[in-house]
Amino acid sequence: MSEGIAELSRNEIDELLNAQVVGRIGCHAEGLTYVVPVIYAYDGDAFYVVTIEGQKVRMMRKNPRVCFEVDDYERGSWRSAIVQGRFEELDSQGAARAVALLSARFSAGGAERRRPTDQGRATVAFRIVIEEITGRAVRS
Amino acid sequence: MSEGIAELSRNEIDELLNAQVVGRIGCHAEGLTYVVPVIYAYDGDAFYVVTIEGQKVRMMRKNPRVCFEVDDYERGSWRSAIVQGRFEELDSQGAARAVALLSARFSAGGAERRRPTDQGRATVAFRIVIEEITGRAVRS
Repeated sequence: MSEGIAELSRNEIDELLNAQVVGRIGCHAEGLTYVVPVIYAYDGDAFYVVTIEGQKVRMMRKNPRVCFEVDDYERGSWRSAIVQGRFEELDSQGAARAVALLSARFSAGGAERRRPTDQGRATVAFRIVIEEITGRAVRS
Repeated sequence: MSEGIAELSRNEIDELLNAQVVGRIGCHAEGLTYVVPVIYAYDGDAFYVVTIEGQKVRMMRKNPRVCFEVDDYERGSWRSAIVQGRFEELDSQGAARAVALLSARFSAGGAERRRPTDQGRATVAFRIVIEEITGRAVRS
């Protein structure tokens, strides 16, 4: 068979991260592992997320060592990036930067404006700072 | 705003799980949380995966309590399912069933045949048995 797994270069990983909009955070606290999708912005060093307070935020406050995953699957071929990172909650200045990054990214489609913030729960802005990143392509 | 988060019924969750082909496993062992995408088949009780031996399998053997996540994001609207489950490695009979389920699912596109199995590493078949499942829709 001509299939194979190839490691992606950092440039190829950055291409994937800039092309995709949905990533999944994996977090773990008190014996529970939890994976949740988020819309992100990416600045080369970290992933920025603005969300409403909930289970993932509570878990990451308890254990800031998290995984962040992005993938692209098409007709049997994969590209994926897997990050080991550190959760950092943002103060109001950091939150403004996160909102600006997300707005810049999604202003065309308006996706950023459609985030649900009307649930009566606090909005939380955070970033996942990259500590280690690997990327892989599985080509058919 | 007219946005809102709605819980999905089990039927709606099953629709999502039957429509999607990529899920992400979140596992945790020895202080590390790891999220990895997989192609799955679904029989209503468990997710079936055939893969090559690697980090995720080693971690799930150490800690079989895992999370399995499936999502669908389109123009600002989400559906997602998040499962708390138990990793079970399959014996040869179970592996044959997993391969049959995956083949039935992917025979049209041939994706199943294109899985990489030529890396000199053992093939592993496993399932994630559902213990708890929640689904959510975020509508814009």
